[in-house]
Formats: sequence, structure tokens, C-alpha cells
Amino acid sequence: MDESLERSHRHISRQFNTDLQTLHQHVLEMGGIVQQQLENAGSALINNDESLAETVIANDYRVNAMEVSIDEESTYILARRQPAAGDLRMVMAVIKTITDLERIGDEAERIARMAAHKSGHALGHHQQLLPHVHLSVEHLNDLAQSMLKQALDAFARMDVELAFQVAKRDVKVDQEYDGLIRQLITYMMEDPRSIPMALDIMWAARSLERIGDRACNICEYVIYFVKGKDVRHIDLELVQVDLHSEEQPAGRTAE
Amino acid sequence: MDESLERSHRHISRQFNTDLQTLHQHVLEMGGIVQQQLENAGSALINNDESLAETVIANDYRVNAMEVSIDEESTYILARRQPAAGDLRMVMAVIKTITDLERIGDEAERIARMAAHKSGHALGHHQQLLPHVHLSVEHLNDLAQSMLKQALDAFARMDVELAFQVAKRDVKVDQEYDGLIRQLITYMMEDPRSIPMALDIMWAARSLERIGDRACNICEYVIYFVKGKDVRHIDLELVQVDLHSEEQPAGRTAE
Repeated sequence: MDESLERSHRHISRQFNTDLQTLHQHVLEMGGIVQQQLENAGSALINNDESLAETVIANDYRVNAMEVSIDEESTYILARRQPAAGDLRMVMAVIKTITDLERIGDEAERIARMAAHKSGHALGHHQQLLPHVHLSVEHLNDLAQSMLKQALDAFARMDVELAFQVAKRDVKVDQEYDGLIRQLITYMMEDPRSIPMALDIMWAARSLERIGDRACNICEYVIYFVKGKDVRHIDLELVQVDLHSEEQPAGRTAE
Repeated sequence: MDESLERSHRHISRQFNTDLQTLHQHVLEMGGIVQQQLENAGSALINNDESLAETVIANDYRVNAMEVSIDEESTYILARRQPAAGDLRMVMAVIKTITDLERIGDEAERIARMAAHKSGHALGHHQQLLPHVHLSVEHLNDLAQSMLKQALDAFARMDVELAFQVAKRDVKVDQEYDGLIRQLITYMMEDPRSIPMALDIMWAARSLERIGDRACNICEYVIYFVKGKDVRHIDLELVQVDLHSEEQPAGRTAE
């Protein structure tokens, strides 16, 4: 464990009681499963690996089950411990984060379905024609995975700076996505036989783009939790300047 | 106001205090705005009405603002009133419902963007070729709108039976969506010049299909609130049989 991580773990320990620490830990476990699902879905898509795709589809229930159980855990904490201020914001951040994690799990399952479907097409000459498309899919996939990983790191350490950085990377995902869609449209128009497969890639790309959005959502909950400010639907550059100029103590601001 | 609605309003009045009634009312107001946004987006899409599409895009901030304010209201109620059992489930249902409402608002905005984009294409002969596609889009649009309306009715009256009915209609949306996508693929393959416009319709259709999913989510929160059971990720037919056989008193079951 690196030093800053240890420091923030100590920080969390002082700040929260065991219930909240366990809750936090469960979210990270759920995040780990979702990360694995996304990693497998991406590699099934890129390598036309139908059996790996099936594994992802078969494992989606685990993500769903964790969402339900963490939701129950949160409700229990709200009812029994009646948290206030920072602790309450923590529970709110958890309730919202797991919704996004579950939906990222759904997108991973959709990518896996497209991977399974795509590997079923009679590809023939199409596969050779697509190296630049494949490269773009790989880029988009790497970006989405790394954003999710960093969002979960930001959540693990309640690291606002990292949360801001991740949220800003979403522009890059959108650019990569737009470029890929344009390539695919050109490709479909040039060779209409490629349409079914190109559409599969398009849906998968859309899912990757949405995963970037959801990773941003998670980062916004981290900022909300630590700074006590709801930064959804606001320009992040402005928020960051604003928060730095205020220099509020972390985790214990407005109720 | 019809009789059953009045009866359930009286039921809610007895059951909740003013804070919770106001919270409930605010969700319905937000629902009304989202419904209007979706209605306008759908009619912009079907009638190629670019100016109506712009109105939808310009009004999305209202939905976002309501989500943030209802979230704050919920957090305040949790902190100050420390609700338990049914009241706590009510707040949890609200927190989750407004997330889905906000995302339905986002989908409405996306549909409006596609409508604006689509009306920008040089259509020429394509428009004449698409009457059956247009009809399918209209069907899908009607279905999504009516599911959202009914989901909000179910939420307004906390009507579990209606919630079950709505959730079951999602199969119909999925069928309609699949049929439309197949039509569009055929269309694109027959006439590659139609690809850009067909893709706009495809994205809009995807949004409508997602709106059906989110209307279902809202229904599941209604069932969770009234019956105290989390029915996400479970076959609804089974849940319904199960709940009927138990005949638990509404709104006051497990904590």
C-alpha cells in the first residue's frame, strides 16, 4: 500500500465508524467485480472471444446482487445509525455510486453480447478492412477502462484531485467515440455488407462512451462527499477554481 | 381528481407528514417536466420540428436543477427527521426515482438532438421511402411516453398493481425496438445514402427503448416502497404471485 493511500485510510478510520468502513469496502469490492467484467467484455470484443463474452454475460448477476445488498446495507445504516453531515453524505454517495456501478456492469454485459454477436457474423473480407477501426475500438476501450479504474481509486481514497482529473478525461472519450462513429459510417457507406458488423461495433462503442460518463458520475459523488458540494451539471473547471479558493477542510463542511 | 386517486391521496396523508408529502409532490412536478420534455422531443423527431427540438435542449437544465434540489431535500429529511421503516423506504425510492427521471430527461434531450440533426439532412427521396419506419418510430414513441406516464401515475398513487402492469409492458417496447432496428438495417443496406439519417433514427429509437427501461425502474421503486421488497433483477411474474400470496399490509412491512 503506498503512503498516501495509507494516510487516507487512516483518515477514513478516524472519520468513520466500522459500519461505514465496511460499506465503503463493499463498494470497492463491487467496483472490482465491475472492473473485471468490463476488462473481459473489452477483450472479448477485441479478440472475438465468444466464450469470454459468455462468461461476462453469465456473471452479470453477481454485480446485480451486490447492488441490492449494498443498498440494503445503506438503508440499514440510515435507519439504525442516523448519520449526519459527512457520514450522511458518505451514505448518499454510496447509494448513487452503486447505481452507476451496476449500470456500468449492464454496459459491460451489452458489450459482451455485441462481442458474441459480432463473432457470429461471417466476416470474410471485412475483418481485413478494419484495422484502423479496430485500433480506435481498442483506444476507446482502454480509455473507458482506465477512467473506471481511476474513478474507483478516487472513491477508495476519497481523492478530490484525482476525481477532477478523471472527470476532465471524459472529453477525450467523447472525441475518440465521435471519431470512431465517423469511421464506421464511412465504412458502412462504402461497403453496405459491413453494416451489421459495423453496427455491433457502434453499439459497443456507445456502451464504452456511456461508461466514461458513469465514471464521471462516480467522481462527482466523491467531490460531493468530500467537499459537500453537488457538482453535477456544472462546469468542472469553475468548480475546481471555486473549491481551491475556498479551501474548506475535507469531509466536514456544510451539512 | 378521480375517486381512487383521492382515496390514495388520503391514504398518503395519513401515512406521511408534511415534509414527505412535499417531497413526493416535488418528484411528481419533476416527472411532469420530464414528461413534457419527452413529448416535445418525440414530436420534434416525428414532425422534423427543429425549433421544438431546440426548446427541449434549452430546457434540460430545469430537469437537472430539480434533481439536485430534490436530492438536497431528501438529504435534509434524512438528517433532520431520521425516518424509519416505510418513511425511510419512501425517501430511498425518491432518491432513486429522480436519478431515473433525470436520465429520462437526458434521453429526451438526446432524441431532440437527433431530431435537430436529422432535419438538417438533405432528405430528398429518402423521406418518401420511410413511411413504415416512421410508423414504427411513432409506435415506439407512443409506447415510451405512455409507460412513463403510467409509471408516474403508479408513483403518484403508490399503486403496486399499476407498477406491475407497466413493468410488464417493457417486453412490448423491446419487441417494437427490435423490429424497428431490423427495418432500419434492411433500409441502410438497400440504400447506403440513407445511412446517416437511419442512424439518427436508430439512436433516437435506442433512447426510447432506454426510457422504457427507466420507467420500469421507477415501477420497481414503487413496489419496493409499498411492499418493502427489492424486486430489481427478479422475474416480476414470480414476485407478483409471491406478494399476492403473502398479502402484507401496504407500506408498513419489514424495516
